[in-house]
Amino acid sequence: MKRLFAAALTFAIAGEFDVRTTVRAWIDSHHPQLVGELLDALAIPNVAADRSNIRKNAEHLRGLFARRGFSSELLETDGNPLVFSSLTVPGASRTLLLYCHYDGQPVDPRAWKQADPWTPVLRRGRLDEGAAEIPNARALTRVEPDWRVYARSASDDKSPIIGILAAVDALKAADLAPTSNVKVILDGEEEASSPSLVPAIGRYRDRLKADLMIIVDGPTHSSGRPTVVFGARGIAEVDLTVYGPKSGVHSGNYGNWIPNPAARLASLLASMKDDDGRVLVKGFYDAVAPMSDEERRMLDSVPDDSARMLKTFGVAAPERAFPKLQQAFQYPTLNIRGLASAHVGAGARTIIPDRATAAIDIRLVKETAPADLMAKLRAHVEAQGFHVVDREPDDGTRARYSKIARLAVVGTNTNAFRTSPSNPLARALVDAITRVYAEPPVMIRTAGGTVPIAPFIDALGFPAVLVPIVNFDNNQHEENENLRLGTWFDGIVTIAAALRM
Amino acid sequence: MKRLFAAALTFAIAGEFDVRTTVRAWIDSHHPQLVGELLDALAIPNVAADRSNIRKNAEHLRGLFARRGFSSELLETDGNPLVFSSLTVPGASRTLLLYCHYDGQPVDPRAWKQADPWTPVLRRGRLDEGAAEIPNARALTRVEPDWRVYARSASDDKSPIIGILAAVDALKAADLAPTSNVKVILDGEEEASSPSLVPAIGRYRDRLKADLMIIVDGPTHSSGRPTVVFGARGIAEVDLTVYGPKSGVHSGNYGNWIPNPAARLASLLASMKDDDGRVLVKGFYDAVAPMSDEERRMLDSVPDDSARMLKTFGVAAPERAFPKLQQAFQYPTLNIRGLASAHVGAGARTIIPDRATAAIDIRLVKETAPADLMAKLRAHVEAQGFHVVDREPDDGTRARYSKIARLAVVGTNTNAFRTSPSNPLARALVDAITRVYAEPPVMIRTAGGTVPIAPFIDALGFPAVLVPIVNFDNNQHEENENLRLGTWFDGIVTIAAALRM
Repeated sequence: MKRLFAAALTFAIAGEFDVRTTVRAWIDSHHPQLVGELLDALAIPNVAADRSNIRKNAEHLRGLFARRGFSSELLETDGNPLVFSSLTVPGASRTLLLYCHYDGQPVDPRAWKQADPWTPVLRRGRLDEGAAEIPNARALTRVEPDWRVYARSASDDKSPIIGILAAVDALKAADLAPTSNVKVILDGEEEASSPSLVPAIGRYRDRLKADLMIIVDGPTHSSGRPTVVFGARGIAEVDLTVYGPKSGVHSGNYGNWIPNPAARLASLLASMKDDDGRVLVKGFYDAVAPMSDEERRMLDSVPDDSARMLKTFGVAAPERAFPKLQQAFQYPTLNIRGLASAHVGAGARTIIPDRATAAIDIRLVKETAPADLMAKLRAHVEAQGFHVVDREPDDGTRARYSKIARLAVVGTNTNAFRTSPSNPLARALVDAITRVYAEPPVMIRTAGGTVPIAPFIDALGFPAVLVPIVNFDNNQHEENENLRLGTWFDGIVTIAAALRM
Repeated sequence: MKRLFAAALTFAIAGEFDVRTTVRAWIDSHHPQLVGELLDALAIPNVAADRSNIRKNAEHLRGLFARRGFSSELLETDGNPLVFSSLTVPGASRTLLLYCHYDGQPVDPRAWKQADPWTPVLRRGRLDEGAAEIPNARALTRVEPDWRVYARSASDDKSPIIGILAAVDALKAADLAPTSNVKVILDGEEEASSPSLVPAIGRYRDRLKADLMIIVDGPTHSSGRPTVVFGARGIAEVDLTVYGPKSGVHSGNYGNWIPNPAARLASLLASMKDDDGRVLVKGFYDAVAPMSDEERRMLDSVPDDSARMLKTFGVAAPERAFPKLQQAFQYPTLNIRGLASAHVGAGARTIIPDRATAAIDIRLVKETAPADLMAKLRAHVEAQGFHVVDREPDDGTRARYSKIARLAVVGTNTNAFRTSPSNPLARALVDAITRVYAEPPVMIRTAGGTVPIAPFIDALGFPAVLVPIVNFDNNQHEENENLRLGTWFDGIVTIAAALRM
């Protein structure tokens, strides 16, 4: 019995090793098609606010899916259209919904080291290492893994879309069908916070129904290994202002007498965190669920190169409260992202300032609701003796309360999401990638950052994971965004594995 | 014996009451001359950097003193000339050195509610209360006490110069000679930190020799009563920077792991002061000498209207450590005059900032040397676990030390000064003013602010006091600087009292 199982496993591994070999071989013999389709897609400007070019992107991508036999259409919304494509596989009992986005971050063309962020440039390596440009990219018969394509959305998030098409092509060429029905939704407003995504569910719920969502966005783990991400932290933002005199007063004429709001803000902030970086706001970590042994092992198995990161950032040691990065991601943060009070440097004046403000972002985990943490933060500020106001204090409030602070929520919150790594479909995906690579992917229980589609995941109601397939050093959101071709090719294999899960 | 003394006192008081009546009567009958001389002086632009106009001011003022029988000359320096005038009084055994300055703060003419800050405007009261302009000021035969002259240097510090001349004129008209030899020095660079003043002592020591310096600058106590100020706090300025990662890092990708410099700065600042506003830096107040009962009584006798000040500033209560303003002035301060780290408000980004800076000013008292307090501050920062650097930390420093802070001294320190209120000459001056007004002046042991000529006082080596004679609400250093005529007229009486001390 045991022997039989082992034999079956060997067969399965061998079979999926074939997928890897097969897809790799197909990629190697299709460089011109792959690179050509990528360059075509990157040549269409794609800032969400540029409605006419956005539609060109959508139409172009719809055509690429239709050509592969997908049923593909534009789903109109109050904003930019969603590109929805669907491939029904005979006999498949489950459905994957793959998510990418076709819009990109706005650009400052002057900051780019090329004529136009939407005229892609191929280079022999990293621009910041002096890699030369390779002319006539479309005429090449072969490219090298270390070569990079520089363009807006080269990695975030058009190459994943072309990568999905390539995985479908490669499997088809080997007569291997996906083992699930495949739906693909392409968002045209991700970099503008995806305002049309949740409302679209009301109109298109049936189309969007699936068993597992696979988000193909963001970079792989910095080791470059295949990566599956089970969750991401959410975010809430708040400005905390402590008030002093109505306007700045002379620090000589009133120093030691009129209270200083910057000193009071400093004390208030200091009361929120201990020297190890642990948040002291009562109950801040209470809701965080204890982790299972399996989850702990997962965190420990992530091959983070802490020493390299610390060296890169010029930091001698991490916070003592959370010495391991993956552990740190399992807890909410209370981060001071900015401080302001009067002026420092050449513009400084000898005054007691009228106010001092800390801009704070709170990264949420699945268990911590933003409203709950905000209420705890407010209670903490009150417990430090502050009267908390929701607007500028008036004369009456000023006369009555010695210590006045304002908590102003900024923007909208984004929830965290997390799919349990023991969810059967998530596990099946991991197993499929493990079979193809003969080792498990890097598994991230919770990514530190925030994905704006968390509300979409919540609203759809089925599990979601991220399978990023681009290089971590891609300059995403910045100038000179780029894609390392070898990482992308590996990612196409990973997508093929997912389609065969 | 007692009776004889009482009789003498009565005679003296009566005599000096005559001075008040006499000087007041002279002022009342000389409005056109007084206002005319003031307007003439104010019409000459007087920013220290404007060398040619500065010299016109100096020549003009030299002429006014010479016309009164003073020996008057320009003392050349490496900067602007000093106007030095001297009147020897037969039989006088002591010498007063009166100090004023003839330069003024730079102006932003667009911020002024008149065509030109050097074209004085006479108003029926306060501009901000809508007081109307009075045309043809030079043709008036009488002015009212509440009327105000609006011009740069109207109060800071040209009216004191014209006031000294008027006091001399008034005494002379009554055949009353000053009881001391009188020297007057007019600084042409006070608003530019008086760089030529101390060096001038080397060249002109004999001329500057005196027994008591009387600085006629700044506003009277807000009660408007005659005021004598025995000292002023000094100042030292320092920027405190706490370092984080070499450049800002993503608050999601690294939050809870890479230490936040703004949080560490907040904790560091919080460690420096308790909730009552008392500085916790070890030994910060140690050098401050205990006060005598007489000095305590002096502090208590200052008629500060705390309730009004708090209401004006919109502050419910002063710092608990120093509930009385005059008491607060006797101690050094540690004031956060500015905070900066990345951005707050619309420009805020979700990062862990690369650094956070607090701009600090320390107001010094006579007993606290700036170098000593700086050393104590540095020791405090080190005691909180920080490695203190003098420049941007390099990679080696960053790798070695987890907590790094920089203390950067800004500009040059100005020492405090204080003349003992029991100094016989200071006492004689107070007595003279007390006789003239039949009540003692407001006596300020230590003014909260800083006078830049403290090093000059130190270098000369004889005692100094301030006798301010202009209204406290004069908008000094700002746009729409002004002089209330009634306060100035009272001040001329006070100067006459000093000349008769």
